[in-house]
Amino acid sequence: MHILIVGAAGMVGHKLTAGLVRAGRIGGKEIVKLTLADVIKPEPVPHAGAVETVTADLSAPGTAQALIASRPDLIVHLAAIVSGEAEADFEKGYRINLDGARLLLEAIRLEGINQPYFPKLVFTSSIAVFGAPFPEAIGDEFFATPLTSYGTQKAIVELLLNDYSRRGFVDGIGIRLPTIVIRPGKPNLAASGFFSSIVREPLSGKEAVLPVSRDVRHWFASPRAAVGFLLHAAELDTQILGWRRTLSAPGLSATVGEEIEALRRVAGDKAVRLIREEADEKIIKIVAGWPCNFEAHRAASLGFRAETSFDDIIRIHIADELGGRIAF
Amino acid sequence: MHILIVGAAGMVGHKLTAGLVRAGRIGGKEIVKLTLADVIKPEPVPHAGAVETVTADLSAPGTAQALIASRPDLIVHLAAIVSGEAEADFEKGYRINLDGARLLLEAIRLEGINQPYFPKLVFTSSIAVFGAPFPEAIGDEFFATPLTSYGTQKAIVELLLNDYSRRGFVDGIGIRLPTIVIRPGKPNLAASGFFSSIVREPLSGKEAVLPVSRDVRHWFASPRAAVGFLLHAAELDTQILGWRRTLSAPGLSATVGEEIEALRRVAGDKAVRLIREEADEKIIKIVAGWPCNFEAHRAASLGFRAETSFDDIIRIHIADELGGRIAF
Repeated sequence: MHILIVGAAGMVGHKLTAGLVRAGRIGGKEIVKLTLADVIKPEPVPHAGAVETVTADLSAPGTAQALIASRPDLIVHLAAIVSGEAEADFEKGYRINLDGARLLLEAIRLEGINQPYFPKLVFTSSIAVFGAPFPEAIGDEFFATPLTSYGTQKAIVELLLNDYSRRGFVDGIGIRLPTIVIRPGKPNLAASGFFSSIVREPLSGKEAVLPVSRDVRHWFASPRAAVGFLLHAAELDTQILGWRRTLSAPGLSATVGEEIEALRRVAGDKAVRLIREEADEKIIKIVAGWPCNFEAHRAASLGFRAETSFDDIIRIHIADELGGRIAF
Repeated sequence: MHILIVGAAGMVGHKLTAGLVRAGRIGGKEIVKLTLADVIKPEPVPHAGAVETVTADLSAPGTAQALIASRPDLIVHLAAIVSGEAEADFEKGYRINLDGARLLLEAIRLEGINQPYFPKLVFTSSIAVFGAPFPEAIGDEFFATPLTSYGTQKAIVELLLNDYSRRGFVDGIGIRLPTIVIRPGKPNLAASGFFSSIVREPLSGKEAVLPVSRDVRHWFASPRAAVGFLLHAAELDTQILGWRRTLSAPGLSATVGEEIEALRRVAGDKAVRLIREEADEKIIKIVAGWPCNFEAHRAASLGFRAETSFDDIIRIHIADELGGRIAF
């Protein structure tokens, strides 16, 4: 089995690559080759099979065809620019998030014209396809009314994924990821960054800023769960999905206050005291438009699993990123 | 006010043009110019103001920019290839129905970069954005899961219309039209053609074939109602819509049997005897996947109105197309 990961240099791509190397097989088939593609050069990984890294922009002419010419059996499409950037740069957002994905789908369709080709395609969508006002928990049949260009682009690719699958060009499945916490690395400018930093920074003895109130509720899963979703999607028999190919992944609905109390249980009061509350009206407004709770019955019934407590999410971070060591 | 109609040569475009000429004004503003564009040359209409006809393909490079360069105040986008053709010719469907609309939106956005430009855009969407299984009546928040490429293309343009409106590039509104009956003209190959022909042909003393059973239910409005929706949309203050810019239009949910009984009431048993039942498995299967009933509360509350009986739909056809005369 040959696997292509588009967007392999990102946090999820990197962890997914490691997960695939660890697993060695997908759906009972040995992984003989990994192609890791991204706009910045992906780190190669030690792997018994072949590993190829490709530095290219999926939205540039010819890139998708070149990637598909080697006919990978499984393609995981993670490449995207984030919500804030897609909002700031309208043209870039549509080019990367919509046209990139469409070029990939077209390359797959065209590759199959001369010689049958029917790869599995796992697409990472987002809860940003939903826009307020919401029901108390968003069900599997709630309609997509995005309030960002990013969410619009993801919702469009979901529709394309369904249609290309229905037409028999690709075996597609989409997973709407919750907000992934705790993200490793430094604080970034993403509006959602504080959900990670208010735990990550204190665990290393550093201060973190909380820009919203403690009663803000949101929808979470760990990086480990995200990789689990993608691996499970890659192995799932999609026939059961019919032509509704995108699933809202399960997750944990929790308030910032509950997140902070979990930090207190895991790392104590000293860690919690490093969180400095400093309201940021801009972030408060953005976050108010985000979905915060789902009834992800469909994904759960298909075997997708996420954490059920913030304590677990924090412990996973400590185990996977900090080698089990914290500052307290 | 300068109005551009894209897809002006079609049945709805032609009737809309006549309706605009009759009205003379939109939202209290005098119509001083009509630009009628289509891939086949639109018939010019007698009008006190200027009338320009343009024969061009919206999806061809430069067409959208050329149409928008004259900065129309109101644009009605009707151009599309129908469901059957979009299913038969995948590339053409995406080119005309998706890329054409996107090029129009882009031309509007780019026109506004140097000098502010914020036209109203009325887009005709379709109930084909919904795919079975359905609830008994499709509510205003049911999700778009199209089962045709045509429906996928319409659903994508709805998303683009929302985003371009939210970003302030255009003042967009979309209307999901019911199946329009009774279509004038000759029988065509559209799978939905029989809904019109089983009334239209008998009214002229000709035989018509009914390929499905009488208990098939569907969602209807007259051509006159369709023009009414578009004129009402053109005049509606869209602020009330927020960023959910597309509405399912009201319509009449009726079975084929109810349609036939309406024909009997309006034109008698002799007309009904001209309907020959001849099951067509292919059409039966296609029709089974179509939505047949809606709760179009949102559009109704905003003043959109459709017929409430099939008798009215038939009488409108007799008045508007047959000069009040039938064969019986």
